Amino acid sequence: MKALRFSSNRLIFDPQADSPTVPPGEQRIRIRLAGICRTDLELTRGYMNYEGVLGHEFVGEIADTDSPWPKGTRVTGEINAGCGECEYCGKGLARHCPNRSTLGILKRDGCMAEWAVLPRENIYPIPPGVPDETAVFVEPLAASLEIFEQIHIQPEQRICVIGDGKLGLLIALVAAHKQDGNTLLIGHHQKNLDRVSDRLDVTLEKDFDASTRKQWDIVIDATGSSQGLNQAMTLARPRGTIVLKSTMAHAEALDLTPLVIDEITLVGSRCGQFPPALRLLERGVLPLERLIEAVYPLEEAEEAWKRASTPGALKVLLRVGGSE
Amino acid sequence: MKALRFSSNRLIFDPQADSPTVPPGEQRIRIRLAGICRTDLELTRGYMNYEGVLGHEFVGEIADTDSPWPKGTRVTGEINAGCGECEYCGKGLARHCPNRSTLGILKRDGCMAEWAVLPRENIYPIPPGVPDETAVFVEPLAASLEIFEQIHIQPEQRICVIGDGKLGLLIALVAAHKQDGNTLLIGHHQKNLDRVSDRLDVTLEKDFDASTRKQWDIVIDATGSSQGLNQAMTLARPRGTIVLKSTMAHAEALDLTPLVIDEITLVGSRCGQFPPALRLLERGVLPLERLIEAVYPLEEAEEAWKRASTPGALKVLLRVGGSE
Repeated sequence: MKALRFSSNRLIFDPQADSPTVPPGEQRIRIRLAGICRTDLELTRGYMNYEGVLGHEFVGEIADTDSPWPKGTRVTGEINAGCGECEYCGKGLARHCPNRSTLGILKRDGCMAEWAVLPRENIYPIPPGVPDETAVFVEPLAASLEIFEQIHIQPEQRICVIGDGKLGLLIALVAAHKQDGNTLLIGHHQKNLDRVSDRLDVTLEKDFDASTRKQWDIVIDATGSSQGLNQAMTLARPRGTIVLKSTMAHAEALDLTPLVIDEITLVGSRCGQFPPALRLLERGVLPLERLIEAVYPLEEAEEAWKRASTPGALKVLLRVGGSE
Repeated sequence: MKALRFSSNRLIFDPQADSPTVPPGEQRIRIRLAGICRTDLELTRGYMNYEGVLGHEFVGEIADTDSPWPKGTRVTGEINAGCGECEYCGKGLARHCPNRSTLGILKRDGCMAEWAVLPRENIYPIPPGVPDETAVFVEPLAASLEIFEQIHIQPEQRICVIGDGKLGLLIALVAAHKQDGNTLLIGHHQKNLDRVSDRLDVTLEKDFDASTRKQWDIVIDATGSSQGLNQAMTLARPRGTIVLKSTMAHAEALDLTPLVIDEITLVGSRCGQFPPALRLLERGVLPLERLIEAVYPLEEAEEAWKRASTPGALKVLLRVGGSE
């Protein structure tokens, strides 16, 4: 099969990779479309010391007859596979299982290939009527909804999202949906802000109203840079909450004293549950197609990677295969 | 009056400082005993760019007749003085008032002097029967109880306190009191750990049971060093909570990725309310006298500062005056 691997510090398109074996209880999925996430870019900069097939955002289809779903069913899947036996798995938190593997991130080949394999309990059919190009956002959408699982955001509370990359825009859209507006997105790229400015307040950082510093109830850092956290600490009100969505490959110089003085709560936030994300997709209220930067065939992954790495780039998708 | 000031980057004992003026609504207090806090040591290393009379932990007495309390009443006081008009003051959170002054830390002379001045609403009588040497711990005791105001710690949850300095020991004693045990203190100084080992579990860091890493529900960093937070991130369980009690004068290299991956909540924690701390003092269940390292007269503040700065030093007190 064709596959995109990261190995020996290099991105490699392999037209003749071995097809994956399918362990008991798992299911292979024929991949149709995959998304490039910032984490993928970080992985190819050394984050997690990952080696293997890349990718964890996908839309695929069941292409075998020995499956719980009819052949041809469009599916996606939760990326963390737990052991099924620990206390986290017992609580429905397989994404925190200490023995987990994670699709394309940790101990499990990813979805930027013709075939990917996941435990059957990770797999979810995609509701009819949701196009592939929207459904492929289910994983980052679940990660955005995770914020609302972790913290109780009251209806009158104001949310400030920092970072107008693909995840920042998505989180801001979700926040404005959940809070019926009441959300501000701060960014550096007018063209990105323009894509969502009909749904929420947006501002270029240079135009930010500094008089609202230290007044925001909830600040979400989706910048992927330590500067985002430093900025968030200047925006959050005393006793406010900062949500940290960025993972970084390296340590950064940080002074967390403002957290202590202002008694701010900093919440690390990662993956979320797929069912609420799929329900939100099915409602069709989020204009996710606006978040697409470009679509490349898997064969042109190197070009796609370059495009995705451009400052301000939105979601770059990789077309792997269509329906048979 | 005599006073200990920090000015032009120097600690200065001034035997003939001007007595403070008393603004309307405020009360002057004759200081009997003051405590040296790690924050005081940090202030004399440049933290907050503070200049003025040092000190925010004290026991004093009312020495004037024009006061709501009888002359001779022993008192202590909350250190943050709010504007009384903002939303934080309205919520009883004067300690987060954006226009606040803070005794011996921000825009208000401290208590390492014969006289200190605070708004009357900040002043609390000390319950009879609580010795000065115990009552002087009310401010750090309130700061320890603040943790229990900020986060809901369930009865079965295990608390790990890192740092066996004076604040670490105090927090550990409070935690073991609130949780009926179920608390571990990790430190570097056997002599300090020994002081509380009848009340809770203690361990030297080198003897720590590494098999309990990533299993602690609540980890409280009272080390005053960025290494404390790094260590806390290895101890907290996924979805656990780290409480950050340390302020630092400088930025440090930190990699917060574990917070994101394990979805840990980091809670900055500072000052607390005095009434519950005074009630706890009145019950007499905490052996606070064990936390005293030494008592010096204010005139020997320089020696006291050196002693308090020694690694592993516990609470150093400054005797200012006795009852008239």
